[in-house]
Amino acid sequence: MLKQMVHASKTNLEVESLRPVEEREIGHCTKVRRSVNMEKLQSGYLFPEISMREYEHSQKHPDAKIIRLGIGDTTEPVPNCIAFAMTKKAIDLSTVEGYSGYGDEQGNKALRKRIAEKFYENMGIKGEEVFVSDGAQCDISRIQMLLGSNVTVAVQDPSFPAYIDSSVIFGRAGELQGQNGKYERIVYMKCAPENDFFPDLSNTPRTDIIFFCSPNNPTGTAASASQLRRLVDFATANGSLIVYDSSYAAYISDGSPTSIYQIPGAKQVAIEVSSFSKFAGFTGVRLGWTVVPEELSYSNGFPIIKDYDRIVCTCFNGASNIVQAGGLACLSAEGFQAVSRVVNHYKENAKILVEAFRGLGMEVYGGQNAPYLWVHFPGSSSWELFAEILEKTHIVTIPGRGFGPAGEEYIRVSSFGHRETILEASNRLTSLHKHIFK
Amino acid sequence: MLKQMVHASKTNLEVESLRPVEEREIGHCTKVRRSVNMEKLQSGYLFPEISMREYEHSQKHPDAKIIRLGIGDTTEPVPNCIAFAMTKKAIDLSTVEGYSGYGDEQGNKALRKRIAEKFYENMGIKGEEVFVSDGAQCDISRIQMLLGSNVTVAVQDPSFPAYIDSSVIFGRAGELQGQNGKYERIVYMKCAPENDFFPDLSNTPRTDIIFFCSPNNPTGTAASASQLRRLVDFATANGSLIVYDSSYAAYISDGSPTSIYQIPGAKQVAIEVSSFSKFAGFTGVRLGWTVVPEELSYSNGFPIIKDYDRIVCTCFNGASNIVQAGGLACLSAEGFQAVSRVVNHYKENAKILVEAFRGLGMEVYGGQNAPYLWVHFPGSSSWELFAEILEKTHIVTIPGRGFGPAGEEYIRVSSFGHRETILEASNRLTSLHKHIFK
Repeated sequence: MLKQMVHASKTNLEVESLRPVEEREIGHCTKVRRSVNMEKLQSGYLFPEISMREYEHSQKHPDAKIIRLGIGDTTEPVPNCIAFAMTKKAIDLSTVEGYSGYGDEQGNKALRKRIAEKFYENMGIKGEEVFVSDGAQCDISRIQMLLGSNVTVAVQDPSFPAYIDSSVIFGRAGELQGQNGKYERIVYMKCAPENDFFPDLSNTPRTDIIFFCSPNNPTGTAASASQLRRLVDFATANGSLIVYDSSYAAYISDGSPTSIYQIPGAKQVAIEVSSFSKFAGFTGVRLGWTVVPEELSYSNGFPIIKDYDRIVCTCFNGASNIVQAGGLACLSAEGFQAVSRVVNHYKENAKILVEAFRGLGMEVYGGQNAPYLWVHFPGSSSWELFAEILEKTHIVTIPGRGFGPAGEEYIRVSSFGHRETILEASNRLTSLHKHIFK
Repeated sequence: MLKQMVHASKTNLEVESLRPVEEREIGHCTKVRRSVNMEKLQSGYLFPEISMREYEHSQKHPDAKIIRLGIGDTTEPVPNCIAFAMTKKAIDLSTVEGYSGYGDEQGNKALRKRIAEKFYENMGIKGEEVFVSDGAQCDISRIQMLLGSNVTVAVQDPSFPAYIDSSVIFGRAGELQGQNGKYERIVYMKCAPENDFFPDLSNTPRTDIIFFCSPNNPTGTAASASQLRRLVDFATANGSLIVYDSSYAAYISDGSPTSIYQIPGAKQVAIEVSSFSKFAGFTGVRLGWTVVPEELSYSNGFPIIKDYDRIVCTCFNGASNIVQAGGLACLSAEGFQAVSRVVNHYKENAKILVEAFRGLGMEVYGGQNAPYLWVHFPGSSSWELFAEILEKTHIVTIPGRGFGPAGEEYIRVSSFGHRETILEASNRLTSLHKHIFK
């Protein structure tokens, strides 16, 4: 491969009209050292890895109808009124009167205000504290940029891999320990059935940052108000900063808090990251937001919002104006109703899948407050399970181990899909003899 | 202000149904230390600072018709065929057949291929080496994420402020030196009329990274093929990595290279960052790209493209699919012709402004290969000039000092604007008595 590249380059050199002043060495390397942080990353990022496995499977079984319950990718159309708002904005941009260039880096004021009103009613969050973005995953990295290099990090185990991977990239993780697959400087807060998927905080060392996702990806469980109360108290006592990810809040069905700011005192200890991806089917459209309360400050009293604003202005340039128009339409009465119908569709899918796995005698978590099921296969390797399910049913899932050491023995199953696809998946699973799920 | 916030928070606490376990201290600070890097940033980021000054001026002179030749913000409508492609994509997303979720993090394959064909014809750049993004400024930060913490940086002086500011945020800049306004660890490569706006490389210390923007923002000058040949040789000899910003390449009129890859050997030493912002009026729509050639490697031979791909997958999630559809339309025969017409409009504006300033006896650089004029006012303070021009003509410019120490005595003037605005600006400038431009 490398040889090919060098060859291609040489051929190219030959056809160029300009000639190098001196013959360059073939295979020239820069003297820039590879980042020691990048070297510490475990193989590939989880989701592209899953896509590659799926691709390999499709090559091996060209006739198989593969069902994708792996990557949490939305499948249902964007509601008309929202698509219309985006077409309208695009058309406006083609007129002299309607054209606009750079918007505020922090996002359109009306959208920031509307997000504050719609998602943070009675929580005292102002539009000025909402930073509109191109998605929660991107915001996680911007939050990492904000922080100094020596901050310490805790994550739920299992958790969305971007928290750990971005911590590695920013040099906060230390060495990967071969024996348990953990990074030495990251605190892994185990979340499992035995602790109701909420970490044992009495046992958790203090860190500067606590990444906390609820409803959790991948376990599909939402923290209760009293659990979050404990989390906020823990952060307050330790002077920690919670980075709370509420990207799946729209899926909450049991009255659990949809925002960390429902917990009094949270504004002094938490940033909240959230997204239109799973709420409005914007996975490819790209829109999210981050709330940084004005009350939140560093140890020296300096408001964190001021630095975050600086990061957003320097390292980002605002979400697309067309997409922001779509976001605003999602939060209109009509739009909100329409996206809620889509969310309900996925929730019903989750019920169907929960029943299918339970019918096989499996322990299933999640699915009630999240579009994800977390299915337990005691004693099994999750990558082997992933491969076996794919091989036998042509259903793509995600091995729990991809989300952290505590994900071993689990697979994550996404409930995003057309109804007929989900029913077909359910049939395939049900018709499988129980013994494959040993 | 801080008091108000605390008060608002307390009121909010009182109305909440959940009660804190213990009385929290009013004005609680986390124990997270503010990043020493963020502390080193000079006041505000330049462009929001300019917006604020403009806003203050408008408050002071509510009846003044302010002309904005400051921030380089496009003003002309997006051509119809491009807007149409985006509306079509938005409508497709509202249909079962046309809906799609996550795209490839690196961008739509067709768009990557088209960018390679259109902008890098005969340079041997493949679609797989093109990473589509939400803009060049964002990509600069992603490139910073890619690199280790100890890399050293050189920039043109003056230069687009994001290079230095992101270097500060990533801890590469060292201390700000009060006497000359430079960061101690950054190498400032002076670009001025006396060196034809190309740095004296015989005099430039080796750094890992060389940020190089051509056509340059702010000076508006494009490096010639022989200058770029020297730059590539310099980087090759030193094992440096050039981060080449070609965001204004569409404005080149004199045959200067539009890409660093026109220089043989550049693929082994350079990343190229570019943008649809000024090329297609996408400043608010948000689309850019970065080329990382497969030949480019770290000192240990590891291909940089692999790490960049990992950054894009982990810290970014792809540009909006609607916007990418617009990007593809820009590169169709019809779209390209249409955006070229808009670029020509801005170029004609630049000519008008060049004439106006020359008519006042000023030395004007740029304007031929870029939408920016770089006007010299020997002996003057650029912030004072900025304020004086704003006060006397209600024209917003940008003080050259905002782009680096070598920008003192200069102002940058943008030629983005409707024709009548540019003519009006020209009139206001011409009618001013020469003595204000002392």
